[in-house]
Amino acid sequence: MSAEIPIYDPELLTKYNLGERHETLKEDESLCVRFLELLGELTEVGNISEKQFQEQFEFMKNSHGTYYCTVIIDTIKDRVVGASTLLMERKFIRGCALRARLEDVVVSPNYRGKQLGKCIVEILTNLGRTLGAYKMTLDCKDSMIPFYESLGYAKEPGNSNTLSIRYAASSNPEPKL
Amino acid sequence: MSAEIPIYDPELLTKYNLGERHETLKEDESLCVRFLELLGELTEVGNISEKQFQEQFEFMKNSHGTYYCTVIIDTIKDRVVGASTLLMERKFIRGCALRARLEDVVVSPNYRGKQLGKCIVEILTNLGRTLGAYKMTLDCKDSMIPFYESLGYAKEPGNSNTLSIRYAASSNPEPKL
Ligand SMILES: CC(C)(COP(=O)(O)OP(=O)(O)OC[C@H]1O[C@@H](n2cnc3c(N)ncnc32)[C@H](O)[C@@H]1OP(=O)(O)O)[C@@H](O)C(=O)NCCC(=O)NCCS
Ligand SMILES: CC(C)(COP(=O)(O)OP(=O)(O)OC[C@H]1O[C@@H](n2cnc3c(N)ncnc32)[C@H](O)[C@@H]1OP(=O)(O)O)[C@@H](O)C(=O)NCCC(=O)NCCS
Repeated sequence: MSAEIPIYDPELLTKYNLGERHETLKEDESLCVRFLELLGELTEVGNISEKQFQEQFEFMKNSHGTYYCTVIIDTIKDRVVGASTLLMERKFIRGCALRARLEDVVVSPNYRGKQLGKCIVEILTNLGRTLGAYKMTLDCKDSMIPFYESLGYAKEPGNSNTLSIRYAASSNPEPKL
Repeated sequence: MSAEIPIYDPELLTKYNLGERHETLKEDESLCVRFLELLGELTEVGNISEKQFQEQFEFMKNSHGTYYCTVIIDTIKDRVVGASTLLMERKFIRGCALRARLEDVVVSPNYRGKQLGKCIVEILTNLGRTLGAYKMTLDCKDSMIPFYESLGYAKEPGNSNTLSIRYAASSNPEPKL
């Protein structure tokens, strides 16, 4: 992997003063390994080969303006200590609008309680606004509601349900497209 | 506009017997006008120029494997009577997984109560599975919960909250990227 290809233009973070400690995810092997380790604090990650990671990274990078994977680096210890992704979805409704989504927020256990979680959510919330979304949404567990409420997120009365179907792994007849 | 460019490969619907009455959205002026009219039954659509529509369509089409805008056509009356979009989001978690999302489900008022809503949700739910997603989610109003529950969707206990921030239109300092 070449070391310094960012998944999105890092200028977006500096141009609007959105991030000081924040960086875009880069196609750097050691960064990626540490990024995946951190994601393991959020949910199951599984074994991802370098090739798989690279292909997913390339896909996201080439979906211009869609995936904003963002990390917080402890530059002294050279660790990835926080991460989240802003997903920008194109719509036809509302004048061909953009809907922003906050995904996969995580802070390294040793670094929790230092406002880093708050900080990355704020950055990506502002980035979603800057990029022109009409709204930003996220889904979360009951226990996380106070955290997001403290950052300006709210349940819309009568309209705040996430419903889902989980597919069995064996129910996928084809490889991913 | 050229008449017959589909937003995704229509074979996906026939190959897996997913749709009989379903078609992919196509870059056809009259189809698009009627599609936007139908979306007006779901929410605000606003004035969308042909150029704007075309650009959004092209973007979605070129985000290979991401936007599955699907319509139901009344071929006798040549009307767009139902529509929904399946959005496939790439993740790094869960072995570089795909998460499916159901968006913008709508059926023309004169055609409601004829199982068309159910039908398009089922098609896209199966398409999400076929494409290899580990789960499919949607967000909806309280009043729609029974509809989606009848189709196999459920609230996950303790983990079924959609939170949001609505941005003021004037808060967007830059044009959409
Ligand atoms: C959730 C998480 C990202 C928070 O990160 P963090 O860096 O510890 O959070 P911060 O230090 O920025 O906390 C900011 C504020 O939110 C509060 N907060 C943090 N976690 C909270 C929670 N679960 N519920 C309520 N409040 C919470 C803090 O007390 C703090 O309040 P203060 O400003 O009054 O001091 C982190 O705990 C984590 O990675 N958890 C595991 C993964 C996860 O659950 N992600 C969320 C998926 S929706
Ligand atoms: C929601 C909508 C798509 C349903 O379309 P439809 O074609 O009328 O629905 P169907 O005929 O397939 O209904 C299938 C079943 O769901 C039931 N159903 C339909 N709407 C329902 C609702 N709001 N709540 C509970 N059940 C509902 C029907 O009674 C029917 O039950 P049955 O199989 O026992 O007869 C349509 O009403 C619509 O476009 N509404 C406006 C837009 C909207 O709200 N979209 C959903 C956004 S989350």
